[in-house]
Amino acid sequence: MKRRDLLKGMGAGSVIAGASLAAPAVHAKAKYQWKMVTTWPKNFPGLGTGANQLAALINEMSGGRIEVKVYGAGELVPAFEIFDAVSKGTAQMGHGASYYWKGKSEAAQFFSAVPFGLTAQEMNAWLYHGGGMELWRETYEPFGLVPTAALNTGVQMGGWFNKEINSLHDLKGLKMRIPGLGGEVLKRLGGTPVSLPGGEIFTSLKSGAIDATEWVGPYNDLAFGLYKAAKYCYYPGWHEPGTTLECFINKEAFEALPADLQSIVLNASKVANLDGLSELTARNNEALQTLVNKHKVELRRFPDEVLQQLLEVSEEVVAEIAEKDAMSKKVYQSYKRFRDQVMQWHDVSERAYLNARAGA
Amino acid sequence: MKRRDLLKGMGAGSVIAGASLAAPAVHAKAKYQWKMVTTWPKNFPGLGTGANQLAALINEMSGGRIEVKVYGAGELVPAFEIFDAVSKGTAQMGHGASYYWKGKSEAAQFFSAVPFGLTAQEMNAWLYHGGGMELWRETYEPFGLVPTAALNTGVQMGGWFNKEINSLHDLKGLKMRIPGLGGEVLKRLGGTPVSLPGGEIFTSLKSGAIDATEWVGPYNDLAFGLYKAAKYCYYPGWHEPGTTLECFINKEAFEALPADLQSIVLNASKVANLDGLSELTARNNEALQTLVNKHKVELRRFPDEVLQQLLEVSEEVVAEIAEKDAMSKKVYQSYKRFRDQVMQWHDVSERAYLNARAGA
Repeated sequence: MKRRDLLKGMGAGSVIAGASLAAPAVHAKAKYQWKMVTTWPKNFPGLGTGANQLAALINEMSGGRIEVKVYGAGELVPAFEIFDAVSKGTAQMGHGASYYWKGKSEAAQFFSAVPFGLTAQEMNAWLYHGGGMELWRETYEPFGLVPTAALNTGVQMGGWFNKEINSLHDLKGLKMRIPGLGGEVLKRLGGTPVSLPGGEIFTSLKSGAIDATEWVGPYNDLAFGLYKAAKYCYYPGWHEPGTTLECFINKEAFEALPADLQSIVLNASKVANLDGLSELTARNNEALQTLVNKHKVELRRFPDEVLQQLLEVSEEVVAEIAEKDAMSKKVYQSYKRFRDQVMQWHDVSERAYLNARAGA
Repeated sequence: MKRRDLLKGMGAGSVIAGASLAAPAVHAKAKYQWKMVTTWPKNFPGLGTGANQLAALINEMSGGRIEVKVYGAGELVPAFEIFDAVSKGTAQMGHGASYYWKGKSEAAQFFSAVPFGLTAQEMNAWLYHGGGMELWRETYEPFGLVPTAALNTGVQMGGWFNKEINSLHDLKGLKMRIPGLGGEVLKRLGGTPVSLPGGEIFTSLKSGAIDATEWVGPYNDLAFGLYKAAKYCYYPGWHEPGTTLECFINKEAFEALPADLQSIVLNASKVANLDGLSELTARNNEALQTLVNKHKVELRRFPDEVLQQLLEVSEEVVAEIAEKDAMSKKVYQSYKRFRDQVMQWHDVSERAYLNARAGA
């Protein structure tokens, strides 16, 4: 039957059939204009661009049914107000790191990074298959937010130093820009943790106002020019061994989506989580070559004695979070149990393999 | 205007307009019934279930526009014929491991596992941000297939042994079920690699027909009962340090999809890739506890001397693949360059951190 005959042959019933065919099209075409507020400067390498990529992916997989516009820190709301903004529905999504919200909930810290805690691979195993994600949702539930893991930095660097660290004694009086739990550990070992916004780090290090700073890893540190302000680069990043960045979604906005779009939003975060770690691993790799070969950066490992003490004090500091409230205790217990077990597994797999490959 | 009036008022033009409104609806609702053939027994833990999860995810994210029916090995085509079957369009998708197809292309081996090669995190970095995926696509292009990475096992175990391995001498005459490049390495050190299908491994080990076997990791090995047939479990899995499992798609079928569904298929694989590694990490973790605490399995590390020789011979064996053809050379060079660099980065990050956390 030709198209013209088909149309001619249509009675009212056929037209209704046509209309009812059209109805789901209108529904399928329902568009969601979402805003994503972030704690990163617009297009900040790795982190800000990670937020952009997540937004683009949601758009692409949804065939344009969700359009997410990304705002850098301060464009719509200041960096540290994005949690409240998404909670209230001023924006539908936020992109940051959960340890920024310890003022809202101490437990939140476990979902980003913990000194001597989980690596990227272990963190994802705990979140997706070890009960971690359920606990994260429970932690953010009172704020009307649905959290997802949206990027992982992998093991960070230990930091940039203008003083040699040869023993525990060298930590005494050390003025270092190191926030959060890592800063608390340094403090208990006699150091002075300093809090500085990103924009002031370089000049403070250069001028000697601080002796040291941690930042992220070779890729971000190279872009930041830290090698021009410090003599030594120490490893490993004991304080942030696999930092998870997050996306959170206003719960009401999320629940208003049809099931396929809900799935797309959650799974786009998983893709971004894997993709971000993959990108940073590849870029860190290249940047390390540049730092060492071109800029002659001196890489140094923290002495055993120092690492051992940092480990012991970290265990204390992290355990103390559990005493703050019931939710923190629940999350700590789950995290600690998983870490202690996965350490045993990785002792005979990842760690043993990496050592064997290095001929160590 | 009421709906009835609207319909009544429609002339031929309106009907056409209605039809043209309906057209995208029909298009949006276009359903794809796809078949996925696999090299795994139906629902095989971790690997077969990984294929099931990928199929379910595509269905969920596409709102049912793509339905993928999964077939276990032998249900539609035998395990090792899935490559040809998808290439010809008998099925639209396949789920396996690229080293199975070295008869089609020697280069394919680099996209699954290589002795002393990349770990899971490194493999993903090479594939997604180091040029690996582009090379994989080029390798499968002549077969009309689009490849994706769809799961990663992480570092596997070294294998189950009924003979102690205390020196290189103990490898001489060792009859071990170990396929592929790992088997070739063992052979050059005086061992006898044996090829056995999964179903015959347990009895062969139990009866003494073979002295040892490798399989996957604690989770799969526990389910397989290998601890009942062998005395020692050796680590690390030098021969498969981060095995990537694959999904491949018939290129014509893939290109017939609208852009959003293409994106959903490719990104569902990325989710499955991350999710599979996360699941196996968590499960291996639990299974190791069961093996050691309940079944009193004796975990042993290969001696340094043995690991060192395995490493040297592995480098030779892998380098020889590059001599087979131009594509293999190109892939080898990219893989080797990335590995040598990322080793330096992970020496100061993942490896240094894991050692510090273990107090080593």
